[in-house]
Amino acid sequence: MSLVGDLKAASGAAPAEIRGRIRRGEWQRPTAGLAPGYAQANLVVVPREIAYDFLVFCQRNPKPCPLIDVTDPGSPEPAYAAPGADLRTDVPRYRVYRRGEVEAEVTEITRYWRPDLVACLLGCSFTFEAAMRHAGLPVRHIDEGRNVSMYVTSIPCRPAGPFHGPMVVSMRPLSREQIARAVLVTGRYPWAHGAPVHVGDPEKIGIRDLARPEFGDPTRIAPDEVPVFWACGVTPQAVAQAARVDFMITHAPGHMFITDLLDEDLAAG
Amino acid sequence: MSLVGDLKAASGAAPAEIRGRIRRGEWQRPTAGLAPGYAQANLVVVPREIAYDFLVFCQRNPKPCPLIDVTDPGSPEPAYAAPGADLRTDVPRYRVYRRGEVEAEVTEITRYWRPDLVACLLGCSFTFEAAMRHAGLPVRHIDEGRNVSMYVTSIPCRPAGPFHGPMVVSMRPLSREQIARAVLVTGRYPWAHGAPVHVGDPEKIGIRDLARPEFGDPTRIAPDEVPVFWACGVTPQAVAQAARVDFMITHAPGHMFITDLLDEDLAAG
Repeated sequence: MSLVGDLKAASGAAPAEIRGRIRRGEWQRPTAGLAPGYAQANLVVVPREIAYDFLVFCQRNPKPCPLIDVTDPGSPEPAYAAPGADLRTDVPRYRVYRRGEVEAEVTEITRYWRPDLVACLLGCSFTFEAAMRHAGLPVRHIDEGRNVSMYVTSIPCRPAGPFHGPMVVSMRPLSREQIARAVLVTGRYPWAHGAPVHVGDPEKIGIRDLARPEFGDPTRIAPDEVPVFWACGVTPQAVAQAARVDFMITHAPGHMFITDLLDEDLAAG
Repeated sequence: MSLVGDLKAASGAAPAEIRGRIRRGEWQRPTAGLAPGYAQANLVVVPREIAYDFLVFCQRNPKPCPLIDVTDPGSPEPAYAAPGADLRTDVPRYRVYRRGEVEAEVTEITRYWRPDLVACLLGCSFTFEAAMRHAGLPVRHIDEGRNVSMYVTSIPCRPAGPFHGPMVVSMRPLSREQIARAVLVTGRYPWAHGAPVHVGDPEKIGIRDLARPEFGDPTRIAPDEVPVFWACGVTPQAVAQAARVDFMITHAPGHMFITDLLDEDLAAG
């Protein structure tokens, strides 16, 4: 197709059309900005044997792990979030883990698929960032064309089975006048991390140096701005890695699954 | 204790104190009105073997089945919702089911407890009814001292494993001027059924006769009022009964578990 690689054209396309291009190998780049208005999702694929503990972990930590769909064991179809889609091929880039280590980064996982695998989709910050921008709030890392800053905190997740560890957060700087609006706007989306977990004072949540995020890029903070922290969808991956689960597949950072759900479907109500 | 049976006194007590009385057999009646401000919860206890499918069912149907806590297998302690509580003794009345039939109604389940049992707590309509009353909205069945009207609808739940069936809803009549406020007030609590699933027109959701609810009492509807329907926590019990699960324990209707969580802990944000 002549549109391959044309972000502007792709961004206006419907989710199913974009997933088709991804499936055909025509789009292997990050998905930020594609299909505006539609929710994108984090992917975590685990064997049925540990899926129970993973579901309980998500239930116990809904802010970092807002579950929006779980497939039947062996089925790669997210029947709620995108009927007809195939989670083995419709994500631009995947990471395959064995015992907590990345074994491969691939563009489809057909050869890794097994009848006992369960795919979990979790809401993603793109949803609330779009809402922030609609509300006239700055999203610095987008404005400056960088990845969001992410930090490992001292906030413990509630453990479940082998899954335990600290919450990972993402950070966006805001002026003091913008904080209340940002809380209200993002708090509407409990299935996309919801309201911030912390405002200001990074040391209180175990972050020593804002300039050195554990994941992503550093973010410029203006002198009159406060760092605001949201629970981050990297948390379940970090926790599963730390638990050294035998086998797990996730999306590669930034290469999300594009659902048929509207961002508004991840709102409360 | 001299306070036994004294609702007024009990209602001012802290959750742990009320649970203590229930544990000692001093309170075996419905819990409506006790510990105002604290969230009460539906209880569903199932063997670990089918708990996975039940968790997926709850994930797929968050409006009727808002999970607020899941115990570790064999543990009767809801470590998040009420640390130190014992779900075998701290509910005033239980129902024990075998293959979908009620086998016993009892005031404690110690003798039924097994190392493979998992207890799930689900948010309850008492939370949003309290919010409605705080907002000056009528809750007719409370005002008239009756049980809420509940109906089996034609709205299908999304199935998971053996669990499938229609959504059960509860109904509260409101004037047309009150509908928007009721939607906004209850929509704040996604972990307590959230906003209504339907406003008016019972036939559209398969309800033939409002005067004949499947569960609870009929509710008086004034000529200028509209029936408003919320997803109901009876749904998972009805679905588990229909699936004829081998073994299940629930609270008896109206005899809820009183958590340490504030109603506000079941709000979005």
